[in-house]
Amino acid sequence: MEYIISDRLQGVKGSIIRELFKLMKDPNIISFGGGNPSAETFPVEDIARITSEAFEKNPIGMLQYGLSEGYDPLRETMKAHLTKNEGFDFTDNELFIVSGGQQAADLTAKVFLNEADVIITEEPSFIGCMNTFRSYNAKLVGVPMRPDGMDIDKLEAALKANPDAKLLYIIPNFQNPTGYTTSAEKRKAIYKLARQYGVMILEDNPYGEIRFAGNPIPAIKTLDTDGRVVYAGSFSKTMAPAFRLGFIVFNRALIPRMTVAKQCTDVHSTVLFQHICHEYMTTRDYKGHIAQTCELYGKKAALMLGEMKKRFHKGVVFNKPEGGLFVMAFLPEGMDSTPFVEEGIRRGVATIPGVAFVVDQSRPNNGFRLNYSTPTDEQIVRGVEILGKLTHEYLG
Amino acid sequence: MEYIISDRLQGVKGSIIRELFKLMKDPNIISFGGGNPSAETFPVEDIARITSEAFEKNPIGMLQYGLSEGYDPLRETMKAHLTKNEGFDFTDNELFIVSGGQQAADLTAKVFLNEADVIITEEPSFIGCMNTFRSYNAKLVGVPMRPDGMDIDKLEAALKANPDAKLLYIIPNFQNPTGYTTSAEKRKAIYKLARQYGVMILEDNPYGEIRFAGNPIPAIKTLDTDGRVVYAGSFSKTMAPAFRLGFIVFNRALIPRMTVAKQCTDVHSTVLFQHICHEYMTTRDYKGHIAQTCELYGKKAALMLGEMKKRFHKGVVFNKPEGGLFVMAFLPEGMDSTPFVEEGIRRGVATIPGVAFVVDQSRPNNGFRLNYSTPTDEQIVRGVEILGKLTHEYLG
Repeated sequence: MEYIISDRLQGVKGSIIRELFKLMKDPNIISFGGGNPSAETFPVEDIARITSEAFEKNPIGMLQYGLSEGYDPLRETMKAHLTKNEGFDFTDNELFIVSGGQQAADLTAKVFLNEADVIITEEPSFIGCMNTFRSYNAKLVGVPMRPDGMDIDKLEAALKANPDAKLLYIIPNFQNPTGYTTSAEKRKAIYKLARQYGVMILEDNPYGEIRFAGNPIPAIKTLDTDGRVVYAGSFSKTMAPAFRLGFIVFNRALIPRMTVAKQCTDVHSTVLFQHICHEYMTTRDYKGHIAQTCELYGKKAALMLGEMKKRFHKGVVFNKPEGGLFVMAFLPEGMDSTPFVEEGIRRGVATIPGVAFVVDQSRPNNGFRLNYSTPTDEQIVRGVEILGKLTHEYLG
Repeated sequence: MEYIISDRLQGVKGSIIRELFKLMKDPNIISFGGGNPSAETFPVEDIARITSEAFEKNPIGMLQYGLSEGYDPLRETMKAHLTKNEGFDFTDNELFIVSGGQQAADLTAKVFLNEADVIITEEPSFIGCMNTFRSYNAKLVGVPMRPDGMDIDKLEAALKANPDAKLLYIIPNFQNPTGYTTSAEKRKAIYKLARQYGVMILEDNPYGEIRFAGNPIPAIKTLDTDGRVVYAGSFSKTMAPAFRLGFIVFNRALIPRMTVAKQCTDVHSTVLFQHICHEYMTTRDYKGHIAQTCELYGKKAALMLGEMKKRFHKGVVFNKPEGGLFVMAFLPEGMDSTPFVEEGIRRGVATIPGVAFVVDQSRPNNGFRLNYSTPTDEQIVRGVEILGKLTHEYLG
């Protein structure tokens, strides 16, 4: 039969990255294409021990239906953590546990978006959430990303041009795909503009704890005096991605809506993994674990950036990320990175072309994203060498 | 600030049942209100052992990002299981693992529904999925449920009256909330009407394996020659609800759409629990485990129904379910069960009023749902006694 697919899904293509994920099983490809955390960072032994204790002491609690809002001990732990370390204030805010950062975007979209509503997003931005918004038939409007955050003039122009804009989508720290961090000044300016033009902000911060250089910058949520910021975090990069756990912070007035949205979607998130996160954060050296993760990623980033500096043609530009998993390199303005990336894959090195991260995928894009968290040091050196040679062939 | 909530969520109220779930923590209330499987049925020791082996042998595989389609070994196991035991044919069909049966409904809605599309549903039906459809701004049209399935004449009338109907939602076995099973004849008639009027069918079968009386009836999916049936199953009642795992079977032509819908929602389901289901089904006595579960529920159902027969006023009618977790009792036609249920709760016994399961919640409803899987035998006897007394006060 001929299927009539919903309008909402007509405009969503499969994620190039998720498709590439399958290709990466080929052990001969050096992959800078993924977005996985390094498996070295998973606290495997503690996870195994906490799990076996939980199944011994409270198996029913781990296996029976749980609450849609999340596992209370983890919710309290996260609220205390964000209050102490990030300056959050939970007087007017609430925190729910969700099934990964992706679901935070899905629930936010479900609660706020009507068909054809406009979402303003950094460009380039995270394809996963852009596709989530597309799946609600939202209209995406991109604002160019600079090394210190969105171009504020262009953001204001976009807000003026789209009076029906509902939501501003921002990844403030070590953005995916650019690795850029939005400055404190720009965070203030963005919040101010959001107030002025009456839009909500979804502040998506899956990488924030993985900072290996520079100083932390307060979240936009900490500037939020009128409850327009929904803040999303993730355990995927701090604990393990397959936990499928994240959290969402929002004004208490939204509790009934968020509860219903969660119930309609997957009822609740897995209890065992929520218990593990709670136990790990309260009884193990969570701070030390994060410090170790940051150290590892800092070393890998330094290695990759050093090799890129040595090997890449000088016409290829890139910034030094202060955390996270990614760096984006740019071929000279006007060039299209897609054939470059394709040739790289043919030579055994995978990266992701910038076109995967933009609103209008029909326009050529000169960026390509490299991931340094998963390849080995040898793969970083060898892979950058291959790509470097290619940059010289392209630009030489 | 004043939040502008999406139209889609304006019409969705919180699940009365999920709210009641909190109340059930009061140990003094005898709850026939839940929908939980009995914790006695969880194969705790095997789950614990498989988990510790998995963390020993393949921790990274359990903790790193997995595939959106699901964990391949479990997908293959489930396809073999459905082929052998349920007569499914995977020549033209595919199976994905999803985050519980609830997500099967969410993804189906995402793929097929436009705003204001009509969904025809059994009435009463499962509030969770009805709310999922409401969250896509679908218009629900109810067709009265009879002890052998939907009233076929009224189904045809509803299809005629709603030429824009997109989807038919059916729980064929031990339906929630009625406990009714759709007969083989009606399954054929429903499929035929769906073809004739060009609607898809979502066949939701979370309870199918929990049959303790009568003979299995082939799924509508096994009648499906043109790919219009999407079939959903769940591990919540056969393994453990907090796994948050289910599966969805659909025509292969829909693979790209279902993949994208899953990616946009929560990327993938937890790997460890998928591995546990696979290991349990292939290396443990799954058949024996299900037989034990069925025996337990059969005994509990028989006890509850026997007590209801003894204690309830003859004006209260109910049918004998052949499986599942629920029985629905009906006060005389025209009576409203809500004040009855409220008085029951005041006297210490929780049930769910029929109004929770209908399309138009403003009309009085005479049914109330009782769950027999979670209360103890003593609670069943005592709770039915209290409710029985109440029926005599109401109808005597």
